[in-house]
Amino acid sequence: MSHPHRAHVAARLSGTVRIVGAGLLGSSIGHALRAKDIDVVLADASPSQLRLAIDYGAGRRARDDDRPGLIVVAVPPDVVADVIEAELAVYPDAVVTDVASVKLDPFDELRRRGVDLTRYIGSHPLAGRERGGAISARADLFIGRPWVVCRDGETRPADLALVEALALDVGAMPLEMTPEEHDRSVAITSHVPQVVASLLAARLADADEGSLRLAGQGVRDTTRIAASAPELWVQILGANAEPIVEVLDALASDLRDVSDALREPNAPGSRRTVADAIRQGNEGVERLPGKHGQNRRFEQLVVMVDDTPGQLGRLFGELGELNVNVEDLRLEHSPGAQFGLAEISVAPAALRGAIDGLEERGWQIAGNTND
Amino acid sequence: MSHPHRAHVAARLSGTVRIVGAGLLGSSIGHALRAKDIDVVLADASPSQLRLAIDYGAGRRARDDDRPGLIVVAVPPDVVADVIEAELAVYPDAVVTDVASVKLDPFDELRRRGVDLTRYIGSHPLAGRERGGAISARADLFIGRPWVVCRDGETRPADLALVEALALDVGAMPLEMTPEEHDRSVAITSHVPQVVASLLAARLADADEGSLRLAGQGVRDTTRIAASAPELWVQILGANAEPIVEVLDALASDLRDVSDALREPNAPGSRRTVADAIRQGNEGVERLPGKHGQNRRFEQLVVMVDDTPGQLGRLFGELGELNVNVEDLRLEHSPGAQFGLAEISVAPAALRGAIDGLEERGWQIAGNTND
Repeated sequence: MSHPHRAHVAARLSGTVRIVGAGLLGSSIGHALRAKDIDVVLADASPSQLRLAIDYGAGRRARDDDRPGLIVVAVPPDVVADVIEAELAVYPDAVVTDVASVKLDPFDELRRRGVDLTRYIGSHPLAGRERGGAISARADLFIGRPWVVCRDGETRPADLALVEALALDVGAMPLEMTPEEHDRSVAITSHVPQVVASLLAARLADADEGSLRLAGQGVRDTTRIAASAPELWVQILGANAEPIVEVLDALASDLRDVSDALREPNAPGSRRTVADAIRQGNEGVERLPGKHGQNRRFEQLVVMVDDTPGQLGRLFGELGELNVNVEDLRLEHSPGAQFGLAEISVAPAALRGAIDGLEERGWQIAGNTND
Repeated sequence: MSHPHRAHVAARLSGTVRIVGAGLLGSSIGHALRAKDIDVVLADASPSQLRLAIDYGAGRRARDDDRPGLIVVAVPPDVVADVIEAELAVYPDAVVTDVASVKLDPFDELRRRGVDLTRYIGSHPLAGRERGGAISARADLFIGRPWVVCRDGETRPADLALVEALALDVGAMPLEMTPEEHDRSVAITSHVPQVVASLLAARLADADEGSLRLAGQGVRDTTRIAASAPELWVQILGANAEPIVEVLDALASDLRDVSDALREPNAPGSRRTVADAIRQGNEGVERLPGKHGQNRRFEQLVVMVDDTPGQLGRLFGELGELNVNVEDLRLEHSPGAQFGLAEISVAPAALRGAIDGLEERGWQIAGNTND
């Protein structure tokens, strides 16, 4: 796998990169920069976390005579403002950025304290894993992911370029937004879906055992992210409360409207309320950006696959022979059955050839979107 | 692929199987029974739909002298009670079942009309596709899926056995439930997730374009089923209003609680309310039955895959050589990047061998759940 990376940070940097917070994000940035021979120093309030990160090669231990040109604050949301303030004070020549998933709250807090924020540029890489800590870090965590960079009127172009170079160096795509735009965006695309998935899944926690026997792929997809860690999410939701609350209140009101309409099916407008909810949902899901950041649409074919080793290998090997690129893939297992359905997305122009070629080779095509 | 199917219906049936409604479900049942050489007659209010179903081989046209022993009513929810009543009257010797996705509503309606329901047994195959109609029908639609059969005090064992034989004949797994149990179960596992996904996606329809740039896999999964057809869902939700309304009201109240807690973060219990929502969500999602109907847990490894034809084939081919069975699979594409991450679920005992074997063969393992 080759990616056209150059060490952008090194070209713009005098001194080292200092990373404060050696958890998943901090250590992963360290690994990615070390892979480009950039000098990285690490600091963490937890001596054991710091030791782990250093042992795994994310950087070296910070010393008093370090001269960082760029400081990355990668600490939990509830201490991010404190750490940014301290780093700006201790290193008066360094550009300071952070990677917290909420941007306006620390910015406002620092302004309230009267901190000069000329050298601070908030940022947020849209990357993560279900497990945290230095031990889960990996150099490729950010590859291909958006990395939001928040400039303001005070930002110096050279400083902005340095933070964007950091994003590029670790393989991410810098994306400029204001803190307000960023926070509104993650409220609707990340924080509210988390709350909704959690509350829906919480209803399953109360359901009797028998009720869950009919659960299928739909409810599994809808609740998948409900497996997230409570500690982190209490902080994230708390730090971005305002835009989240706005959407949650609107949603609660929508839920009540649908509920009222179902309770009084013969009231004027009731059927329309329910139909509009589903129809507007159709429109919303169509607006989500697809693969490669575009709204490209793919066709799907569904292939029956025996649940034994090598079957998927044979399938994808033969798709490769047919020169069909698999754009997306979903495996569905029938509960109780020893086989699965592989739903394969391909470019529209490739659909017919994929179906014909697979059928020739003996595969059973259970259906396709051009039926 | 071999499944131990015998023609259960044929052994128990005198006469033919009559299917009323030649849409996706009715025609698919027809195809599956025809594949077992069972005589199937079809009826549909739409002459063009009926002609299509017959042309595609789902059965033959109904005649006045048909002597059906089993009648399957596969019509839209809003006419299902009418059709059941008519079929019971016209064919006084036949067992009548239906495949509507709500069970109590037609049953109550028929009782209100004073219809003798001794020969009626409601049922519901948990199967479907995103596209409907005779043209989308397929013989394997029901394979491995649960097929709920609703007996009551009046049900004769031989009639119950006939409906369960139908389910087995088309490859489904019969599951006995009362209509109330069934409707409560689909309310929580299917109907409420649909409403929630639709309303969440509807919020995306209102969002400004820029906000959607940060959308990732989480919101895509949470809203996937929002792509469903409004016409059908208005009927389904209307027919199962009572248990749905109960869960929707509870959810709306939960949403308000979280919203209030975020609005007043320093009020007593606020942090706890938010943390409990996420934690109970963790519990709920853990209760969903996994593959093969069990709560078996798998380990995951994440492999980086170039976005070119043949790469997935090579990966799965090599997993086959390593004798590793892929239990589940999720492909994630980084927006804007020309490669993807394949998250592969394997039995815990197979994890180490899979990682070592793939790394030996040059694959980059981006992470695994045993890190």
